[in-house]
Amino acid sequence: MKIVINEPLDMHLHLRDKEMLDAIAKLSSFAFSGGVIMPNTVPPITTKELLLDYKIKILNLTVGDQFEPYMTLFFQNYDYDFLNSIKGLIKSIKLYPAGITTNSDGGVDRIDVESLRPTLEAMSELGIILSIHGESNGFVMDREKDFISTYSRLAEAFPKLKIVMEHITTKEAAKILDKYKNLYATITLHHLLITLDDVAGGMLQPHLFCKPIAKRDEDRDALLNLALNAHPKVMFGSDSAPHPQNKKESCGCAAGIFTAPIALQKLAELFDDNNRLDNLEKFVSNNAKNIYNITPTTKKVILEKADFIVPKKYGNVVPMYAGEIIKWSICEVII
Amino acid sequence: MKIVINEPLDMHLHLRDKEMLDAIAKLSSFAFSGGVIMPNTVPPITTKELLLDYKIKILNLTVGDQFEPYMTLFFQNYDYDFLNSIKGLIKSIKLYPAGITTNSDGGVDRIDVESLRPTLEAMSELGIILSIHGESNGFVMDREKDFISTYSRLAEAFPKLKIVMEHITTKEAAKILDKYKNLYATITLHHLLITLDDVAGGMLQPHLFCKPIAKRDEDRDALLNLALNAHPKVMFGSDSAPHPQNKKESCGCAAGIFTAPIALQKLAELFDDNNRLDNLEKFVSNNAKNIYNITPTTKKVILEKADFIVPKKYGNVVPMYAGEIIKWSICEVII
Repeated sequence: MKIVINEPLDMHLHLRDKEMLDAIAKLSSFAFSGGVIMPNTVPPITTKELLLDYKIKILNLTVGDQFEPYMTLFFQNYDYDFLNSIKGLIKSIKLYPAGITTNSDGGVDRIDVESLRPTLEAMSELGIILSIHGESNGFVMDREKDFISTYSRLAEAFPKLKIVMEHITTKEAAKILDKYKNLYATITLHHLLITLDDVAGGMLQPHLFCKPIAKRDEDRDALLNLALNAHPKVMFGSDSAPHPQNKKESCGCAAGIFTAPIALQKLAELFDDNNRLDNLEKFVSNNAKNIYNITPTTKKVILEKADFIVPKKYGNVVPMYAGEIIKWSICEVII
Repeated sequence: MKIVINEPLDMHLHLRDKEMLDAIAKLSSFAFSGGVIMPNTVPPITTKELLLDYKIKILNLTVGDQFEPYMTLFFQNYDYDFLNSIKGLIKSIKLYPAGITTNSDGGVDRIDVESLRPTLEAMSELGIILSIHGESNGFVMDREKDFISTYSRLAEAFPKLKIVMEHITTKEAAKILDKYKNLYATITLHHLLITLDDVAGGMLQPHLFCKPIAKRDEDRDALLNLALNAHPKVMFGSDSAPHPQNKKESCGCAAGIFTAPIALQKLAELFDDNNRLDNLEKFVSNNAKNIYNITPTTKKVILEKADFIVPKKYGNVVPMYAGEIIKWSICEVII
């Protein structure tokens, strides 16, 4: 059995920088038409120069793959003129609460509507999407739930601003999605598959440790319901976040799961197992095209129901399902 | 400032076997008068021969320290005659739900009062304590809470059997303690100090990963309330559970925190910080003597308010607070 996915898109992707960028960029560009590139590099992407430099590096590394890096800025209070001058270069701006995840120390200390108003009104007017890592600094299992009221306040205060709740993990986030017209969400592969039990219920699994942390069965089920039904306000965003093996299997393990090279295959398996293969293209492409209003260059990814043995490592990065078998594989990419 | 603790007791201790036993036995026997030795070795302690062999090994390794290993059997359906024949050798029998933690595969599949009745009535009659790892096989954060009803059923069905809820971690377990006269509990050092936030709220910390997993602030506070007030039904049990460093900092990290050599010092710091040093001896000795009805040989441990720099490793085992400073240290042990 084969299926064709046109223009798969990864709407939340960490390509990192330096050697890691060199090592992994093509693992996304090979099978995806584009990706929304997260700006929490070191230093974070906060200027036109950094943005252009990063984009050119990515394009150089992925030349020939027809992969579009949809660039993002790291949220700060930017003024209208600056945003107007770069609006052709970015699709969205990513807001991190300070210190909430990898390289987010320069994020926002307090998400206060009034202090963010000038920047968010400018974004709203210029059609720039606000992308948010929505977690409080509370108890690890409550952080997203605690943040829901902030999503509400922002969605109400800026009704014309498109707001993407990134990598949602809870039934509460799934529920609020339909309450505000301007709220959207990305969902990762791993949050459709695992719960805290997979991370810490048996042996502790550092390669399944991520932020936001995986939650409960009922949360995963709420996300699955959105994804398998290809809810039109939901997009696939892998949040693929590579770290070197020694940063994962160590005394303090960095947060992030590396899924870029296995995501389409595992999604095909998941949608197939649930008899919803007909919705896969909407979840990994059409919805994103509509929400982001983008038209990637034509790319056809042909997936086949044939075993794919996941490599134990890609360079020095251990992927999700390392060494295991996924029942679907990529057999051809036509550009 | 100095304090004296007479006959400190560790009422839940993993000494392991083979090289690990050789490496760590004296780290407990040095400062404790005795410990309840958990039977989940490989193979588990289920016969008189294994029990005697294990006890002799421990005594040989700790000779000169006046350390009494209070031996336990791994729970199975034992008959009265067998239990009667070994009642002088053990103080308690440890019941593990099958597969719930390290080396517990041979545990009980289903905790059913009637199927356990013959063994539990024999234990009750012979004055052997029932020690339980009380977790269901449900969601990792709910496992102890789910098990509370089982504690109730057992406490009601065997009112003369002393039942110790081992290493309690939740406010629910703290609450049920006073509901049944025959329920007791051990509390570890680490569950008085950490929550899931410490394990997985920032970087993932494999050396703080244990079963039962650390819970929420309100759970830790409930345990602290019991310990600092030296609730008479509560005893200190470290659950000190060493694993080689490479089993902790790896792809599947084993559960267990190694605290034996730092426990008394950290407890002194904790009780001192809370102005409850007057209750420390009850928590780490007197309560256990009363509950287990034991009289260890005299041993005085003198602790001093002076910095103790925790070694980064003991052999190949990384202790809790490795490389950090504890404000209290052991200055003398008088036997």
